[in-house]
Amino acid sequence: MALDVENKLIAFQGEHGAYSELAAYEYFGSVVNTLPCQTFEDVFRLVDEGQTSHGLIPVENSLAGSIHRNYDLMLRYDLNIVGEYFLRVSHCLLALPGVRLEDIRSVHSHPQALAQCEANLFKLGVEQVAEVDTAGSARLVRDLGDKSAAALASKRAADVYELQILSEHMEDDPANFTRFLALAKEPYAAYDPEQNEYKTSIVFNLVNKPGALFKALSVFALRDIDLTKIESRPIPGQPWDYMFYVDFGGHAQALNCKRALDHLGELAPILRNLGSYTRHYIQK
Amino acid sequence: MALDVENKLIAFQGEHGAYSELAAYEYFGSVVNTLPCQTFEDVFRLVDEGQTSHGLIPVENSLAGSIHRNYDLMLRYDLNIVGEYFLRVSHCLLALPGVRLEDIRSVHSHPQALAQCEANLFKLGVEQVAEVDTAGSARLVRDLGDKSAAALASKRAADVYELQILSEHMEDDPANFTRFLALAKEPYAAYDPEQNEYKTSIVFNLVNKPGALFKALSVFALRDIDLTKIESRPIPGQPWDYMFYVDFGGHAQALNCKRALDHLGELAPILRNLGSYTRHYIQK
Repeated sequence: MALDVENKLIAFQGEHGAYSELAAYEYFGSVVNTLPCQTFEDVFRLVDEGQTSHGLIPVENSLAGSIHRNYDLMLRYDLNIVGEYFLRVSHCLLALPGVRLEDIRSVHSHPQALAQCEANLFKLGVEQVAEVDTAGSARLVRDLGDKSAAALASKRAADVYELQILSEHMEDDPANFTRFLALAKEPYAAYDPEQNEYKTSIVFNLVNKPGALFKALSVFALRDIDLTKIESRPIPGQPWDYMFYVDFGGHAQALNCKRALDHLGELAPILRNLGSYTRHYIQK
Repeated sequence: MALDVENKLIAFQGEHGAYSELAAYEYFGSVVNTLPCQTFEDVFRLVDEGQTSHGLIPVENSLAGSIHRNYDLMLRYDLNIVGEYFLRVSHCLLALPGVRLEDIRSVHSHPQALAQCEANLFKLGVEQVAEVDTAGSARLVRDLGDKSAAALASKRAADVYELQILSEHMEDDPANFTRFLALAKEPYAAYDPEQNEYKTSIVFNLVNKPGALFKALSVFALRDIDLTKIESRPIPGQPWDYMFYVDFGGHAQALNCKRALDHLGELAPILRNLGSYTRHYIQK
């Protein structure tokens, strides 16, 4: 996380106060500049065109799962993963300044955020109102000027929309993390053999034969390389074909990893190295 | 799909006209009754309490990825998977009767549906308005009575809200499928050795040791059992621990599958068989 933050501009999907923007500040540091984008593809395009130095995109949430669309975009744009960050998603209850918790009658947020706070909202006995996104619901509470309304959103949204935080950690399950990947045009700093906290992300497919996946994974197991993620994704309309998303511990330029990737290349018609980067450990 | 549909009541999450309801009719047949539920957990609870014969829940979308929350609920409720169905997601452009395509100025829908139709909506040159869900946006267009407004939703929503279909297949990528699982209190019909189109879904975890996953998958590869899905899910706060979701071809009561599961049980501290059921092949 010891990145040079000078002249960094980080594209993210969503509006100011979104969880992606919070992740950008936590990962890159609070002095960087951020650029909100309407779509994930806009994030990729801006980085690709050199209009921003980096993009930060969510790829999986511990409750909601992987975001395949962002893997598709990684295959379509020739960018590099240069870092990862696990954001602890903490939904804050935000209201107008001066409002007390007992004044709140309705809570606005994205349906997923409402669902994640279901038990706590039930205890409060408030009406739940579904909105398009979390940051937008914070903006709405400010714009309405309604002292009986609150929003579930990030603590960052409280700053952006000048709301007060009535309560933090409204989520019922504290084990709610979203994994973000930092993207750039150039790969991450060159391989340092003294550093053993690298991770590499790859995408590949396999010809459908019994045991093909087992053979593919053997290229890592036989070299004592640990997998930190594996996910098969059926290619729709081709029920026997799959893409595989795999992350493993190690840098693609380390000798054992390089050999494993060469070996995998013998088996996989498509193999794309998305980047090697420093691993982020989730704190409990 | 030759299910006895008499007296079937199918719980689904969403409101009438939702894609889940469309999947229920396509999978169980158009004569069954459906029961809308506010949350996924309501679906599980109603089936568990015997208030409905079945539940139908989405577990993965080819663009959006897996819905981990529904796997969590499968671990918390002691229900059985009794079937699977891949729904081709086709977003229809719905408007009030008599309206022509050239009259449309704004299109309402869930942000994900709008994103999936981005290129086609751009060609139409319409304003995009994000709503909480697809069926709700169809209801909104009916309630507004606005002849310049349209919704992106399922063809089923057209029937429910008495709208006309201006255009089908508005999605830019036709390879858009959602996989649904049918749940019931009792397991699916007993194993028939003559039938070889079974699939079984399991969840397990592993003690973190190098090569643990490789050993776990060997129990299938060594018995020529094909995997049709594999997904690792990190257990947040425990960066070295994972749950694995695996589907394989075969019935848990077939001898080779039974032996593989016994073998896997030697390696996995937690192993849960979610059910064996008839496989559904996606048509192109």
